Amino acid sequence: MSVRVGILGATGAVGQRFIQLLDDHPTFDLAAVTASSESAGKTYREAAKWRVNTPIPDDVAGMEVAETSPAGVADADVDLLFSSLPSSVASEVEPDFLEEGYVVSSNSSNDRMAADVPLTIPEINPGHLDLIEVQRDERGWDGALVKNPNCSTITMVPTLAAIDEFGLESIHVSTLQAVSGAGYSGVTSMEIIDNAIPHIGGEEEKMETESRKLLGEFDGAAVHLHDADVAASCNRIPTLDGHLENVFAEFAEAPSPEDLREAMRSFESADLPSSPDQLIKVYGDDEPERPQPRLDRTYADGMGIVAGGVQTTDDGAKYNCLAHNTIRGAAGASLLNGELLVEEGYV
Amino acid sequence: MSVRVGILGATGAVGQRFIQLLDDHPTFDLAAVTASSESAGKTYREAAKWRVNTPIPDDVAGMEVAETSPAGVADADVDLLFSSLPSSVASEVEPDFLEEGYVVSSNSSNDRMAADVPLTIPEINPGHLDLIEVQRDERGWDGALVKNPNCSTITMVPTLAAIDEFGLESIHVSTLQAVSGAGYSGVTSMEIIDNAIPHIGGEEEKMETESRKLLGEFDGAAVHLHDADVAASCNRIPTLDGHLENVFAEFAEAPSPEDLREAMRSFESADLPSSPDQLIKVYGDDEPERPQPRLDRTYADGMGIVAGGVQTTDDGAKYNCLAHNTIRGAAGASLLNGELLVEEGYV
Amino acid sequence: MSVRVGILGATGAVGQRFIQLLDDHPTFDLAAVTASSESAGKTYREAAKWRVNTPIPDDVAGMEVAETSPAGVADADVDLLFSSLPSSVASEVEPDFLEEGYVVSSNSSNDRMAADVPLTIPEINPGHLDLIEVQRDERGWDGALVKNPNCSTITMVPTLAAIDEFGLESIHVSTLQAVSGAGYSGVTSMEIIDNAIPHIGGEEEKMETESRKLLGEFDGAAVHLHDADVAASCNRIPTLDGHLENVFAEFAEAPSPEDLREAMRSFESADLPSSPDQLIKVYGDDEPERPQPRLDRTYADGMGIVAGGVQTTDDGAKYNCLAHNTIRGAAGASLLNGELLVEEGYV
Amino acid sequence: MSVRVGILGATGAVGQRFIQLLDDHPTFDLAAVTASSESAGKTYREAAKWRVNTPIPDDVAGMEVAETSPAGVADADVDLLFSSLPSSVASEVEPDFLEEGYVVSSNSSNDRMAADVPLTIPEINPGHLDLIEVQRDERGWDGALVKNPNCSTITMVPTLAAIDEFGLESIHVSTLQAVSGAGYSGVTSMEIIDNAIPHIGGEEEKMETESRKLLGEFDGAAVHLHDADVAASCNRIPTLDGHLENVFAEFAEAPSPEDLREAMRSFESADLPSSPDQLIKVYGDDEPERPQPRLDRTYADGMGIVAGGVQTTDDGAKYNCLAHNTIRGAAGASLLNGELLVEEGYV
Repeated sequence: MSVRVGILGATGAVGQRFIQLLDDHPTFDLAAVTASSESAGKTYREAAKWRVNTPIPDDVAGMEVAETSPAGVADADVDLLFSSLPSSVASEVEPDFLEEGYVVSSNSSNDRMAADVPLTIPEINPGHLDLIEVQRDERGWDGALVKNPNCSTITMVPTLAAIDEFGLESIHVSTLQAVSGAGYSGVTSMEIIDNAIPHIGGEEEKMETESRKLLGEFDGAAVHLHDADVAASCNRIPTLDGHLENVFAEFAEAPSPEDLREAMRSFESADLPSSPDQLIKVYGDDEPERPQPRLDRTYADGMGIVAGGVQTTDDGAKYNCLAHNTIRGAAGASLLNGELLVEEGYV
Repeated sequence: MSVRVGILGATGAVGQRFIQLLDDHPTFDLAAVTASSESAGKTYREAAKWRVNTPIPDDVAGMEVAETSPAGVADADVDLLFSSLPSSVASEVEPDFLEEGYVVSSNSSNDRMAADVPLTIPEINPGHLDLIEVQRDERGWDGALVKNPNCSTITMVPTLAAIDEFGLESIHVSTLQAVSGAGYSGVTSMEIIDNAIPHIGGEEEKMETESRKLLGEFDGAAVHLHDADVAASCNRIPTLDGHLENVFAEFAEAPSPEDLREAMRSFESADLPSSPDQLIKVYGDDEPERPQPRLDRTYADGMGIVAGGVQTTDDGAKYNCLAHNTIRGAAGASLLNGELLVEEGYV
Repeated sequence: MSVRVGILGATGAVGQRFIQLLDDHPTFDLAAVTASSESAGKTYREAAKWRVNTPIPDDVAGMEVAETSPAGVADADVDLLFSSLPSSVASEVEPDFLEEGYVVSSNSSNDRMAADVPLTIPEINPGHLDLIEVQRDERGWDGALVKNPNCSTITMVPTLAAIDEFGLESIHVSTLQAVSGAGYSGVTSMEIIDNAIPHIGGEEEKMETESRKLLGEFDGAAVHLHDADVAASCNRIPTLDGHLENVFAEFAEAPSPEDLREAMRSFESADLPSSPDQLIKVYGDDEPERPQPRLDRTYADGMGIVAGGVQTTDDGAKYNCLAHNTIRGAAGASLLNGELLVEEGYV
Repeated sequence: MSVRVGILGATGAVGQRFIQLLDDHPTFDLAAVTASSESAGKTYREAAKWRVNTPIPDDVAGMEVAETSPAGVADADVDLLFSSLPSSVASEVEPDFLEEGYVVSSNSSNDRMAADVPLTIPEINPGHLDLIEVQRDERGWDGALVKNPNCSTITMVPTLAAIDEFGLESIHVSTLQAVSGAGYSGVTSMEIIDNAIPHIGGEEEKMETESRKLLGEFDGAAVHLHDADVAASCNRIPTLDGHLENVFAEFAEAPSPEDLREAMRSFESADLPSSPDQLIKVYGDDEPERPQPRLDRTYADGMGIVAGGVQTTDDGAKYNCLAHNTIRGAAGASLLNGELLVEEGYV
C-alpha cells in the first residue's frame, strides 16, 4: 500500500534530509525530485552537492532531476509532494501545483499564518488539517496545502501543548540555535567561531505567531490564536544541529515541577510511522545539565523533543527543551504531515 | 600618590587578569602576589602557567610568590588586597586578613549575600560601601571586606539599574556564557565543541539574589533587596570570552524602546580610573545582530557593558546585553571596587 | 560459540567505547567490567559517567564493577580481557593478569615496543601474533599480551602497508588530531577553541617507532623494524573525533598516483567480524577535499581507513588519510586483536 | 614627509585590514578608497560591512568610495596604491593603473610568478625589487608592480631563508590554516565546525612555486628559482586567524636544533616602519607546545613570524612556524612592500 511522492527543491539541505528520511520509508516511494532549471535533466548525483552523513541511496542517485513545475513532475504520477523550496520561490510555485490538484506538505515559511492554511504538528493539532476544506472553498483548489512550523517554534510547542492544561498566560523564550538552521551556507565560519549572534531575521516573529496558531482552537471555520503572550529572543551559536531553548512560562494555576514533568512525559504521541513512541523525553532534577544539543538531538532518530531543567519561579516555571532542527524541525515535520494527510484520507 | 596592593590567588586565571590590569595602573603598585603553599617561594614566572595574551610584566615575573596568609604578605606593606581565591579557600582565609586590618576587595563568591558585606558595582550602588561600618561593628574587624557580583550578574545589572526608573517588576534572563567563566580547566573541549550546556551550578541563584541586592536600597543599617521577581536560565556555549544575555523585563510603566535605549545610554558612569566614559554602549534598531561576544567584548577595554536589540513586547520589553566576563565580570570588577575604596577613604 | 570477555578500566572514555562495540557482538559476551577501587562494588551505571551517544546497554548498566585485579574478575570466568587502563596503571597491573594465565588485548601504550610483545593490526601483520610464543618462553606466562598501536599510528600504517610494495624509504607525516584522543578531560576548551596545538606529548615518537615495528618482519624469533625513516609532527585541533594525517612518502620506485590509489583500494582486509569489507576507502582526483573528519570518520562504522588527495611530488608522493581515533584507533583496534586471538587459537 | 596612498578594493576583508594598519601610519596618508561600481559614490561607512575589531577611523568613515579605475582615483593625487582586489579583477584592472604610471603594491595572486614581476618580502629578498627595471623595459610602463606572496607561503619562507645557510635541499610542509584566509564568506560554518578540510584550491602550488622564487637569486635580469624540492599539503581548520605550519627540511649539511634556532633568532629584520625588531621569535625545547595560533598570532602586532618545536630527524630537521595570515600574510605584507618601494626610491 504505497504512496508515490516527490520532493520540490530536492538538492538543498532540507531536500537532502527528505531523501535520507524517505529511504526505507514504510509507505512512501520517492518518484520525483525537482530543482532549479540549471539542475533539471542532470542525475540527482550530479545536481546535488551531497552533504548528509549517509550515502545517497542508490535508486535516488541516478534519478533524473525535474524542473520545479507541474509539467516537470507530470510523468512521475505522484500523489503527494514535499516542498523545501526557498519561501520566495515557494510562494510563486506552490499555487501552480495546488491548482493542478496536488497535495503539498510544505516546510517553506510562506503562508504559514494564512487563515485558510493548516499549520500542523500531527501530535499537537491534527484536527487543524480540516482547514483544508475551508482552503478548497476559498481558493477553488483541488489540491491541498499544509504547512509545518519553523524549526525554533516546533522545538517549543509540544512542551507548551503538554502543559497548557495549567493555563498558559505568558511565555518568554530564548533560543540557542544551530547553524544548520540557516542552510548550508547561511552562517559563515568567520561570523560564528568564538561568537554568538543575538538575532535571526524574522525568527522571533515566527515563534511568537506560529506558536499561538498551533496552540489555537479550530472551530470548523477558522483557527483562533491562543491568547498567551509570547515573546522570543533568538540566538545563533556555534553548534551544528539541534536547537536548545530556555522557556519561562506563567500560568493561571501554579503547577509544581513534578506536575510539569509528568504532563510532558505523558503527552500522547501520534500513531504515525515517523512519530516517536514517547514524544517528549524529560530529564529529571538529577541531570540538570541536559538536554544538550550534541548528546540529545538524535533522540527518537531526531523526531523527538527533549526537555529538562524544570523548576518553578516566583511567577511560574522555567525549563529547557531541544529538538533536531533539520529533522523534527524541517524535513521530518513535513514528512509527518504527509503521513497525517494519508491517514486522514487527503491522499 | 600610590597605593601598594597585593593579589591573593595570583597564579589562576583571574589572578593573571589582575596582573594584566594592574600593569601601568595610575595609582596601584603591585607589591605582593600569593598562591598555594606549593608555589610559595618560587618566582611568579615559575609558579604561574601564564595564559593571558600579553606577556608577564617584567617586574612581576621575578616577584617571589608568598603564602596566602597575613604572615605571607606581612613584609610587603600593602594597603589593599585583591582576592581571586576559590570560594572554598576564600571563606577560610579572608577573615584572617580582615582581622589583621587589611582591606580586601574580593571576587570570590562566598559571603556576597551576607547582610553586613557590601556587594558593589561602583557605577551602580557606591553608597552600599558604607555597609563596612556595620561590618566593623558586627565583626570587630579593623579591615574591610567588599565583594563584587558574579560575572553573569554584572553583565545585566547596569542595564537594569538604568531602566529601573520605569518600575521593574519582573525579569527573565537567559545567558549565553563563555567557557572562561569556569576557569582555565572548567569546561573540557569534549563537553562543549558542537554543543551547549543549559546549566551552570549555582549560577542561576546567584543572578536571582545578587541582582536584587545590587539594586536594593541601603538605609544606613541594611540593604533591602529590590522586590522585582528575577528568574534566570544559564547556558554555557562554545565562546572563549564575553557573556551575552537575553533580558525580558516587565515594568510598572510601559517605556518605549527609545525610552529604554536613552535611559541606558545616558546612565552615568563613575569617576574612577578604570570606569568607562560611557558605561553602557547601546546599539540601535539598525544593528539588531549586535552585541556579539567576539566583536563587542573589548568595548572600553573590557570594562563596559554593551546592549542592543531593545524591543517592546506585549507585557514589557526585551533586549540583549554583554560584558567581558573575566575583565568587567571578575578582575576588573574587584579592581574598580578597590578604586572606590580609595576614593571613599577606606584605604 | 561464544567467548566470555572482560574490560579492564571500563568506565573511562575508551572503556565506554568497548562496551558500545561489544553490544551485539557476534561472539563476545561481556562478563566483567573493572575500574579503580573507588568504583568497585557500584553498578556500572553508578560508576561510569556515560558520555557515548548511544544508551548504556541494559545488561551492562546493572553489572557490578569489579576491582582491577585477577581476584576481582575471578568469578566471572572470562577467557579474554580488553585493557584500556592508563599506561601507568597498566604497566603495573597487566602482568598480574598474565601470570594468572589471562589473554589480554591491550590498548595501553606501555610495552608496545617490547621485543617480545606483539604489536598488531590484524589486516596488516597478523603473523606477528606468534611472538606470543617468544613472550611465553621469556616471561613464563601462561597468558598472552598483545598490543595495538597508538591512534595516530593506526591511521597511517594501513596505507603505508598498502604502498610498501613500491619500496618505502622515508615518511614525513603531519597529524591533525581530534580532542577525544586525549580522553574526556585531556584538552580544555580554553586551550583549543580558535586554536591548534603543535605538540602531543610522546605522540611523535610513538608514530616513529610503532609504525616501523608494524611494518617490520617477524622471523619467528624477533620483529625487525622496517628501515624507512619516519618523522612525525603531531597537532591537536578543534575536532571531536577523527584523526586526519598528511603523509609525504619517498620510494625506491616512483609509483603514479593511480598506482598508489589502486594499491590502497585493493589492499586486502581480514576475515574477522569487526574488519571492514574494504579496509581503505580512497577518494579520487575529483574529490580532493576529502577525507574530512566529520564526514568520513564513520566509514565502515568507524573501523575503516579513508584516504585521498594522492599526488606525486618531485621526490615521491603525498596523500591524506583518516580514521576514527576512538574506534579504529583504540577500542576497535583491541577488539579486532581479540578476534584475531580467537581465530588463531590463543583464546 | 608623507606619501599619499590609495587602496584598490577597500571594502573587503583585506581592504579593511589595510585601513586598520594605515591608521596612524608614520608616512602614509590614505587619500583614496575604491570598490566595485555599486559602492562607488557612497561613503566608506555605507559601502563597507565593517568587521575588524577596532572602529572605522573617523576620517575614513566619511570618505567617498571611488570606482576602481585610474579615472576614479585621478583627483586623489596618490603616489602609491595598495591592491587587495580579487585576482580575477586585479588581472584586468592593475595594468590600467600601471600604464598610467601608478606604483602598485599588490596582494592579489595574479602575476606573482611572472618573470618580470618582483615577488618580495622586504626582510628576505629586497633586492628583487629591481626587477622593476626589467618590468618597465618589457611592458613600457611608467608605473611599477610589486607582489607579495600568498599567506601560507609568507609564514614559512622567512624561516627557510634563515636556515638556507645549511643548504636546503627538500621541504615538506603541512599547513593548518585559519578560515579568515578564505575571506569573510569563504568557509561556511557547516563546513568547518568539528571538522578539517585537507585541500585549499591552488594553495599547494602557490607554496611550492612562490617559495622557490622568494628564495631564488636575482642576477639583474631574472630571478632563478631556488632548486630545493618543495611539497605542500594544505589544510583548513576551525581557527579564525593565524596559519600554523609543520616543516620537514632536508639539508646539504646537518645542522643541530640549536644551530637552526640560532639562525632563525638572529635573522636580520628590515629597517622599515612596519618591520618587527626581531623578525622570527623562536620558542625553545621547554615550550614544545608553542607557537599556537590564538596565543602567538599577535606577536609584533601580527607582523612577526613565530617558530618552535625545532628537532632533528633521521634525514634533516622538523619545526613549526606561524604568522598572522591577514596581517603579515596579506595587508601587512603589501604595506611593507610599499614601505620598501618608498625606501628604494620607486615612490
